Amino acid sequence: MIALHDPAFRVVLDYAGVAVFAVSGAVAAARRKYDIVIFSFFAAVTGIGGGTLRDLLIGAPVFWVGDAGYVAVCIAAAGAVWAVGVKTWRMPALLWLDAVGLSAYAVVGASKAASYGVSPLVAVVMGVLTASFGGVVRDVLAGEPSVLLRKEIYVTAAVAGAGLFVALRLLGLPDLWAGVIGATAAFILRGGALKFGWTMPRFAPHDDDGG
Amino acid sequence: MIALHDPAFRVVLDYAGVAVFAVSGAVAAARRKYDIVIFSFFAAVTGIGGGTLRDLLIGAPVFWVGDAGYVAVCIAAAGAVWAVGVKTWRMPALLWLDAVGLSAYAVVGASKAASYGVSPLVAVVMGVLTASFGGVVRDVLAGEPSVLLRKEIYVTAAVAGAGLFVALRLLGLPDLWAGVIGATAAFILRGGALKFGWTMPRFAPHDDDGG
Amino acid sequence: MIALHDPAFRVVLDYAGVAVFAVSGAVAAARRKYDIVIFSFFAAVTGIGGGTLRDLLIGAPVFWVGDAGYVAVCIAAAGAVWAVGVKTWRMPALLWLDAVGLSAYAVVGASKAASYGVSPLVAVVMGVLTASFGGVVRDVLAGEPSVLLRKEIYVTAAVAGAGLFVALRLLGLPDLWAGVIGATAAFILRGGALKFGWTMPRFAPHDDDGG
Repeated sequence: MIALHDPAFRVVLDYAGVAVFAVSGAVAAARRKYDIVIFSFFAAVTGIGGGTLRDLLIGAPVFWVGDAGYVAVCIAAAGAVWAVGVKTWRMPALLWLDAVGLSAYAVVGASKAASYGVSPLVAVVMGVLTASFGGVVRDVLAGEPSVLLRKEIYVTAAVAGAGLFVALRLLGLPDLWAGVIGATAAFILRGGALKFGWTMPRFAPHDDDGG
Repeated sequence: MIALHDPAFRVVLDYAGVAVFAVSGAVAAARRKYDIVIFSFFAAVTGIGGGTLRDLLIGAPVFWVGDAGYVAVCIAAAGAVWAVGVKTWRMPALLWLDAVGLSAYAVVGASKAASYGVSPLVAVVMGVLTASFGGVVRDVLAGEPSVLLRKEIYVTAAVAGAGLFVALRLLGLPDLWAGVIGATAAFILRGGALKFGWTMPRFAPHDDDGG
Repeated sequence: MIALHDPAFRVVLDYAGVAVFAVSGAVAAARRKYDIVIFSFFAAVTGIGGGTLRDLLIGAPVFWVGDAGYVAVCIAAAGAVWAVGVKTWRMPALLWLDAVGLSAYAVVGASKAASYGVSPLVAVVMGVLTASFGGVVRDVLAGEPSVLLRKEIYVTAAVAGAGLFVALRLLGLPDLWAGVIGATAAFILRGGALKFGWTMPRFAPHDDDGG
């Protein structure tokens, strides 16, 4: 049986997630017309930032330090975006790529943290951080408003995906199914936010509630 | 005798500090009318950010990863701010809460670092980082000018609190008393900054000094 | 024979790099007329930020936590800038200091990472991060546009320096010579960017290529 925290399987997912996020980082660099080195820098920060934070927090060796393949994937992603040109990868594509990465990483991050023995709640937090931190750093470095703070659902999708994965595992579902269901739920939520503008209820100040 | 680096006692202080800072993070989210998930995210980043950096730097297991209670406190703080409404927790309250957290954390951070055997100067630095880093990240994420860089005394209060604590310990005072005196001094300094606008002398360029 | 990853030799280089970057951080604080504590904070963040990230990533004890001398150097640098005044250390001086630090750190960072057994590609990345991260954090905290994203060559110089160092080591050159050549190449590139405005080719959107 393939287990989601089976190292080999997770490596494949990790590579896919890194590649998708790296492309989104390179596209952000393309929009500002940076050079190829900055392309690679943005691709790497976005691609491996979230997993790096997760590994530092759970005390795991940082996943890309012992395996040069991850950095190579980021550089390749930067080169591909440069070569293909931004016309093919406009804003909408960037956002959908980001949605794929967000969904995959929420589950992968929670799974790796769980394999290090953290409690369910902390595993969910790790999934959310893994999924969102790369994009946050990309936006801070680029001086853009954080994707985190947009009106449409974003972090909520990661919370739902990681939370569903952890809950289904606790209920005894095999990791693989829990992961597929969690990632799918996250993607539907984020996709709905992109396509239909789904939002969460926002805070309304109580200043005028007669108090 | 209760020692400040007695783990049980420090856990209580840690929880109190996390709660106070978490509320200040949630209030920052409330001012921008975010949803409940972003509330929780801001509460957690502000509440546990400083201690996280300290633990990573001194090579300690990150305090909240092995104890889901800290994250739960942050979520509860976010829920409380959401439910009570921002009217009760306006800007001044936020700043005073931040002052309480700053004072407590300067001592707690220095104490934990000292218990890991770092030198006095480095213990002071850890106290300052623990006290100020959560608020710095909160402001960077929210795109607001950093509290760090306001004219009124802020980092200086953390330096004074952590420095006094470390110095009094070196002089042989029990940890508890050194901690109470250090935290009180920090609070008086930051409180004076809030109430009377206390500032430190600022750098004056030497361009016109006849050179 | 002096080896660049000989700990004693690297400590000397580390101190020099920390001092140079710390001064550049303090000058950034001077330009905004902060107080002496913020001067020290900026000096420390800029001086030790890059090496801190490197050590966390490769799993090494953070270099300044076990040796209070590094923090002392940062505080001394802040005091020196305050005392001497900013007139003597205007913008151009800041940029040249930053260039010296960038060149030295690219090699020192790659060397330390290599001594921890990482692959050549990852060693180059560590050199680049060590060289650039302190300045990035300084700019984010000060709310200024990141030096990283200027048009003139910056990260590219660090990539060239760290890459040349790692490549020459692989070819069998002694560490010391590989380091001197790498750092010199980085300094020439960054110096040319400062003096002659050298740039890398920038991304040109393909929107108008007839597609």
